[in-house]
Amino acid sequence: MRIDIITVLPELLKSPFEASILKRAIEKGLVEVHLHNLRDFALGNYNQVDDYQFGGGAGMVLMIEPIDKCISELMKHRDYDEVIYMTPDGTTLNQGMSNHLSLKKNIIILCGHYKGVDQRVRDKFITKEISIGDYVLSGGELAAAVLCDSIIRLLPGVLNDETSALTDTFQDNLLAPPVYTRPSEYKGMKVPEVLLSGNFPKIEQWREEEALKRTEERRPDLLK
Amino acid sequence: MRIDIITVLPELLKSPFEASILKRAIEKGLVEVHLHNLRDFALGNYNQVDDYQFGGGAGMVLMIEPIDKCISELMKHRDYDEVIYMTPDGTTLNQGMSNHLSLKKNIIILCGHYKGVDQRVRDKFITKEISIGDYVLSGGELAAAVLCDSIIRLLPGVLNDETSALTDTFQDNLLAPPVYTRPSEYKGMKVPEVLLSGNFPKIEQWREEEALKRTEERRPDLLK
Repeated sequence: MRIDIITVLPELLKSPFEASILKRAIEKGLVEVHLHNLRDFALGNYNQVDDYQFGGGAGMVLMIEPIDKCISELMKHRDYDEVIYMTPDGTTLNQGMSNHLSLKKNIIILCGHYKGVDQRVRDKFITKEISIGDYVLSGGELAAAVLCDSIIRLLPGVLNDETSALTDTFQDNLLAPPVYTRPSEYKGMKVPEVLLSGNFPKIEQWREEEALKRTEERRPDLLK
Repeated sequence: MRIDIITVLPELLKSPFEASILKRAIEKGLVEVHLHNLRDFALGNYNQVDDYQFGGGAGMVLMIEPIDKCISELMKHRDYDEVIYMTPDGTTLNQGMSNHLSLKKNIIILCGHYKGVDQRVRDKFITKEISIGDYVLSGGELAAAVLCDSIIRLLPGVLNDETSALTDTFQDNLLAPPVYTRPSEYKGMKVPEVLLSGNFPKIEQWREEEALKRTEERRPDLLK
C-alpha cells in the first residue's frame, strides 16, 4: 500500500511515522508513506498556498492551484483508488471504513488547514471526505495520522500475534472486556478469580459476558 | 493550563507539539505540556512496564505499579482536575467536551498501548475515559494529541482572529458553509456570484442557508 499525504505542515507528521508500529510497517516495506509539502507547489515568490475567503470573514483558505499541481503530479505516476480530504464535515470514520480502506493500493490524503480548502478542490478532486470525530482540530494533519494508523495496523504482517487486531474493540461490534496483568494483588486490589483459575472455557465465558455488559452500559448503540 | 501526558512512546508525540498552533500556544505560555515516559517509573532491571494478561490471550497489558508511581509523583506537586484515559471504549469526544475541558487547570492524560491498561488503574485512578472515535489505533498517543489540539486551540489567546474558532463546524451544531478563495475562476470553475457581490447581508444569508443545507444532507443527526 502507498499513502501520499499533502499538507502545509509535513513537520507535524514526522514523529508519528517514526515510532512504533507505523515505523515498523514502513521498515518492513508493508506500506509507503510520502509526505508532500504543499508549499513546494506554491505560487509566485511568496510561496503562497492560501488566501482570504471570498465574501469576507475570519480564516484563510487553501487555494486550488497548488493542490491541483500536486495531485496532478502524483497522478502522472500511478492510479489512485481514493483522494481523501480530512474535514470535520466529512463522513465520520469508523472501524468498518478503516477495514475497507486497508484493502486499497494507492491513496492520497489531503489535510485541510485554517478554514479548509477552496470548495472547488472538494468538487473536482476529492473522492471521499472523512472526519475522525465531532470536534475541530487546528488542521487535518493529526486526523490524517489517525486515519493512517487505523488503516496501517490492519495490513497483513504489520501486527504480530502479541498485538493481534482480532480481539479489538469494534471488530465484532462489542467493546473489549477488562484486562488484568501481574501482580494478582496490588494494594488490596485483586484480579477477578476466574482469570487465575486456568479454566479456559470459563474464562472465555466471563470475557464474553463482561464485553456484553460493558457494551450495554457504555455503548448500547453498538448492539442495535 | 497544564497537561501531563503519560506514555510509553513520548517520541511519537514530539512533532505534534513542536509545530503550528500547539507550538505557539506553548511558547506564549498559554499552556504547558509535559511528556512522561512510563519507563522512567518501570520495575526491575528490565524497565518492565507491561506483562501478559491473566487468563491468557494475545496482547500485552500496561501494569498498575509504574502508572501508580508516575501519577502519585505528579499529584505530590499539584491537584489535578481530571485524570483521563484514552481508550476506544471511553465516552466519544465531541466539541462540547473539548469546550468543557478547556476550562480545567491541570489534567493528566494516560495513553493506553497494546491491549490497554490493567483494569485496576481504570478503577482506581481514572476520572474520565475518552475515545476520539469508533476505530482502534495502535496506541493512545495520537488520540491524546488529538484531544490536546481540540482543547488547546480553544484557550483564550491561542487563536488569532485569522483562525477564530467562533465560526467553526460544531460550535453551533451546524457544519460550516463552503469557502472559496482566489482565483474567482479556475479552469472554468467559478466561485458563486453572491460571494463576489459585496452585499454582506446577502452573503451572510447564503452562508446560513448553505450551512443548513450541508448539515441536513450530511449530518441530520446534529439538527435533532
